[in-house]
Amino acid sequence: MSKKVAILTSGGDAPGMNACIRAIVLVCERSGFDVLGYLHGYNGLLKQQYRELDARQMHNLTQRGGTILHSARCLEFKTDESARLAAANLDELGVTTLFVIGGDGSFRGAQHLGNFWDGQIIGLPGTIDNDIVGTDATIGYFTAIETAVQSVDKVRDTADAFERVFLVEVMGRHAGFLGLNGALASASDYVILPELFENEEKTLKDILTQLNERRDQRGNVSYIIILAENLWPGGIADLVSKLEQRTETEVRPVILGHVQRGGSPVSQDRLLAMKLGAHAATLIGKPITGIMVGEQNGQAVEVPLPLTWEHSKPLDDLSVNTMTLLMNNRYA
Amino acid sequence: MSKKVAILTSGGDAPGMNACIRAIVLVCERSGFDVLGYLHGYNGLLKQQYRELDARQMHNLTQRGGTILHSARCLEFKTDESARLAAANLDELGVTTLFVIGGDGSFRGAQHLGNFWDGQIIGLPGTIDNDIVGTDATIGYFTAIETAVQSVDKVRDTADAFERVFLVEVMGRHAGFLGLNGALASASDYVILPELFENEEKTLKDILTQLNERRDQRGNVSYIIILAENLWPGGIADLVSKLEQRTETEVRPVILGHVQRGGSPVSQDRLLAMKLGAHAATLIGKPITGIMVGEQNGQAVEVPLPLTWEHSKPLDDLSVNTMTLLMNNRYA
Amino acid sequence: MSKKVAILTSGGDAPGMNACIRAIVLVCERSGFDVLGYLHGYNGLLKQQYRELDARQMHNLTQRGGTILHSARCLEFKTDESARLAAANLDELGVTTLFVIGGDGSFRGAQHLGNFWDGQIIGLPGTIDNDIVGTDATIGYFTAIETAVQSVDKVRDTADAFERVFLVEVMGRHAGFLGLNGALASASDYVILPELFENEEKTLKDILTQLNERRDQRGNVSYIIILAENLWPGGIADLVSKLEQRTETEVRPVILGHVQRGGSPVSQDRLLAMKLGAHAATLIGKPITGIMVGEQNGQAVEVPLPLTWEHSKPLDDLSVNTMTLLMNNRYA
Amino acid sequence: MSKKVAILTSGGDAPGMNACIRAIVLVCERSGFDVLGYLHGYNGLLKQQYRELDARQMHNLTQRGGTILHSARCLEFKTDESARLAAANLDELGVTTLFVIGGDGSFRGAQHLGNFWDGQIIGLPGTIDNDIVGTDATIGYFTAIETAVQSVDKVRDTADAFERVFLVEVMGRHAGFLGLNGALASASDYVILPELFENEEKTLKDILTQLNERRDQRGNVSYIIILAENLWPGGIADLVSKLEQRTETEVRPVILGHVQRGGSPVSQDRLLAMKLGAHAATLIGKPITGIMVGEQNGQAVEVPLPLTWEHSKPLDDLSVNTMTLLMNNRYA
Repeated sequence: MSKKVAILTSGGDAPGMNACIRAIVLVCERSGFDVLGYLHGYNGLLKQQYRELDARQMHNLTQRGGTILHSARCLEFKTDESARLAAANLDELGVTTLFVIGGDGSFRGAQHLGNFWDGQIIGLPGTIDNDIVGTDATIGYFTAIETAVQSVDKVRDTADAFERVFLVEVMGRHAGFLGLNGALASASDYVILPELFENEEKTLKDILTQLNERRDQRGNVSYIIILAENLWPGGIADLVSKLEQRTETEVRPVILGHVQRGGSPVSQDRLLAMKLGAHAATLIGKPITGIMVGEQNGQAVEVPLPLTWEHSKPLDDLSVNTMTLLMNNRYA
Repeated sequence: MSKKVAILTSGGDAPGMNACIRAIVLVCERSGFDVLGYLHGYNGLLKQQYRELDARQMHNLTQRGGTILHSARCLEFKTDESARLAAANLDELGVTTLFVIGGDGSFRGAQHLGNFWDGQIIGLPGTIDNDIVGTDATIGYFTAIETAVQSVDKVRDTADAFERVFLVEVMGRHAGFLGLNGALASASDYVILPELFENEEKTLKDILTQLNERRDQRGNVSYIIILAENLWPGGIADLVSKLEQRTETEVRPVILGHVQRGGSPVSQDRLLAMKLGAHAATLIGKPITGIMVGEQNGQAVEVPLPLTWEHSKPLDDLSVNTMTLLMNNRYA
Repeated sequence: MSKKVAILTSGGDAPGMNACIRAIVLVCERSGFDVLGYLHGYNGLLKQQYRELDARQMHNLTQRGGTILHSARCLEFKTDESARLAAANLDELGVTTLFVIGGDGSFRGAQHLGNFWDGQIIGLPGTIDNDIVGTDATIGYFTAIETAVQSVDKVRDTADAFERVFLVEVMGRHAGFLGLNGALASASDYVILPELFENEEKTLKDILTQLNERRDQRGNVSYIIILAENLWPGGIADLVSKLEQRTETEVRPVILGHVQRGGSPVSQDRLLAMKLGAHAATLIGKPITGIMVGEQNGQAVEVPLPLTWEHSKPLDDLSVNTMTLLMNNRYA
Repeated sequence: MSKKVAILTSGGDAPGMNACIRAIVLVCERSGFDVLGYLHGYNGLLKQQYRELDARQMHNLTQRGGTILHSARCLEFKTDESARLAAANLDELGVTTLFVIGGDGSFRGAQHLGNFWDGQIIGLPGTIDNDIVGTDATIGYFTAIETAVQSVDKVRDTADAFERVFLVEVMGRHAGFLGLNGALASASDYVILPELFENEEKTLKDILTQLNERRDQRGNVSYIIILAENLWPGGIADLVSKLEQRTETEVRPVILGHVQRGGSPVSQDRLLAMKLGAHAATLIGKPITGIMVGEQNGQAVEVPLPLTWEHSKPLDDLSVNTMTLLMNNRYA
């Protein structure tokens, strides 16, 4: 009898989710498993909305952003009733393994479902935020950095032409990975991150000191500040106005927004998605469940789902040290 | 005796300004003219800040965004005193031809200067807005469309994944070229342009009608609206909130902002910049001044400066017809 | 009774063909016409292989390279027998208008079919070569320039690092449009085009003169030559070896090849494809047939098919003049 | 007294070399060291050709491909006489630390110099091939993958349109990293790598088997094969002709060539270059020499130079396993 497995994508979409779906489907097809894809995240699981997936449909999919299974929030999935309904739906179709591609909210949903369902549950880290413990990187993170960096590269053209201060807001609500690496790779001058933020006054003073010393040395210069979203108390407009007052310069805000979520995945996201997806599909039927497949030091690893969110993931020392040496100081 | 010519870039920077500078310098060098570049737009002309330009420095410049001569606003250039000072500065250096690369404000400055200076003044249309009469396109316009379109391509990934409404604000204060072509080329669903805007209520109704019919036919769908900046009375936040009320759907705003000004120029901007720049440099010493060099129907043309701003440039019929057939209606 | 129309793509694929298909389908759907797409060019017409096309399938298609209808050569379509079979097949399905998207070979096929079929035939110029008379540009041409230029931008990094001579072969069998504009926009140093090629010896001498003068002035320099394919008598390897002998320098060849055909269409190709496709669809049922829809000076035009291939399309003067001023000479 | 350090780039250029130079210079400037850059690799060291480097020149450099210090081969550097001359030149200028950015040939040169010079020698891995032991990745490798993958994405458009077989040759003379990851990330169908190549006959049979099964299942399909350069005994033309004979299909070759070396570095290369460069600059004056700074598992490490070339670097298991699951088999 052929085994049946299901996939869903949940939470914010991330470039590479489709490459991950493809990897799972290809490995399943060679192993003789049927695959179906639930639509709209957990909503499809509750409403029994799905489509069958086969290798043929996976052609030309790797390079596409977004997710062909669609995603959506599903607040009601927190209830026991919902989880029971989902379990019944999975059983009705004969699904024995469920792959959940998403972030920490999606993994909490998966863990909750595991309390009511006997099938195998395997998570795959898909989020641009890289805020999942247990994997060095998450699917979509590399593309989001690239998009942010290419945007800042463009902003720099105008910043240089006008020798102006720009403030660029990047995504990363609770985690500074995207901000830190986006700022470094774009050779920005200053970065304001949740992990390193002390208070408004100190930040403003730091910026002022650096900017003034730079101007003393080199005359008028462009100056680019990266700001993680939702971090500055009064919002980006408040920071713009405070900087304008203190620098007596025009400061222009740029909010990268949802552009950062989309786009054809860069190679590193495609590769991560394929490695994790293919490995995850080889776990079907093994006595392991309630885990996320991640990559650590070049190896595929299995991590119990709760470990992925119990602690917050720290910025890596090497990147922080590099930032300290190259940014946020007058020598940059 | 060798002739001396000067170049300045003024107004908002636009991709391709450097390619235009290079073309002028290369042709001047082969003709035996010396070239200097004033810095920071008209400010450099007032402060006699300039650098010498030669072919060697032009290497590897074509593909760079921004302007190596820097740009800046110069409000005081409107006075007669400033224009007289500029004329004296030009004469002091022996400059006999001045090239001004910029938009309509820059051309007004050039015309004003012409009232006080006997030298030859040649304008080149450099602005992402394409709002200059007398040339089919302006330097920087093609790149700005490309940047907007690539951003919307990315936004669509998320819009499709979540079947959500997105509202994307593009530049183009008074002219809808960037909005119209950006919306068409990105296969957006609706566009709100200064040239075609009647009132808020009509626009909202149009959108609602189209969106509802689309949903009736196809179920939930993504829906992308392009909005020209500074057009909607209450700003983009007001439109978001009105759309959310009426559609009972989440509507996400994306403001492309200054990212649209920068970036390596696409080929069509490089080519336009080179054609206009090279042609302009062949006019040195000819009895023609106070003109802009533009491209019309594949030919280089010379247009008196005042004609470039006296009337506003209309959207072309073919694009508007195409929009009518493909967008802003329920069949899109 | 609902009218039925058909589309096919033929000849080399070109970026923007899908955007053109979409435009035709959207306009047809709003006009109440059914649309089918023949597969594999004229082969599908002979074998009655087709798929139905509707607006829903057109979603997310604009930005995709290639053609969803596939393309192929079809040598046997030259026979009368084939054209009669095609006519019978079209009649069998009740097709009254056929759109052919392709190059001059495809248009000859369309014209041939017209001798045997009473239906309406409308051609759309889809080829990266831009070698179709009656339209300022062809669908796919702008993207091919962009791809060539971005490749040369990359080659220049190495050329500059090693101060080396590179020879880059671009497509454009009989027409130099891609070569000329690719060379200009990439700020290459020399270009060898079918329209301007005299003989090997003259070309070699020109290059040597320019290169030596450049070296005298600036010391070792990088030097990039663009070569149109199939032009140099002994092939690119022969030119490399002759240049190495005469320059006593390493010369590296780069053959861009099929990479130039693919890729997401740039905005200008999307826009051209949409304008022509939408306009073409408004011609359905009008007493006009055997024509190509093109764009001239910003207007949609209808051109009898034979006029598109009877004469070869000349390079435009402005581009050639710009080349003369900026390239192929020692001042570049 | 201020310390003086020197940098050179040697061997094939790689995207990110400039970002690495910038990182070293910024850290040196804050530490009060003077920095000079030797030109043209070891040739500049022999001819005492160099330029002074300061933070100001580093502006806007991170995103540029190639190397501002130029590179070149230097065969004569193998002699003792050359190394002695280089040592004398370094001493003459008072250089106490030399940074060498390059591949294994450059590191052998550095090691050789160390036999004749008492100063500190620090290598940084800059090569697109990733064939350096002691670091997880090399500077330039990520960009080269991206370039290869984007090229294959474009080739696929034509391959799909014509349902044709394409053979794409990528760089990587002795190491399959670029081929393996380029093939995986581009969702190619088959890859021929030095590490896994057995013989011609087996490879041809494998391809034929997979291609025929694919055609049996799905009808005509596109099929993309990645080939590492210099691997197939008779060259790519021989493989094309053998495949055409056996598949009775047209097979088109694409040689990516030098395009792979250039281009603005992707974020991962910029980040790696900055981390390694900044860390290397903190080692100045420490009692450690004759080492390469690499990154392993997210940490900066110092590896004795001979260890970087004594053994060949194996492909990582996870990538090879993923390849086995997703490519080179009939289920792909």
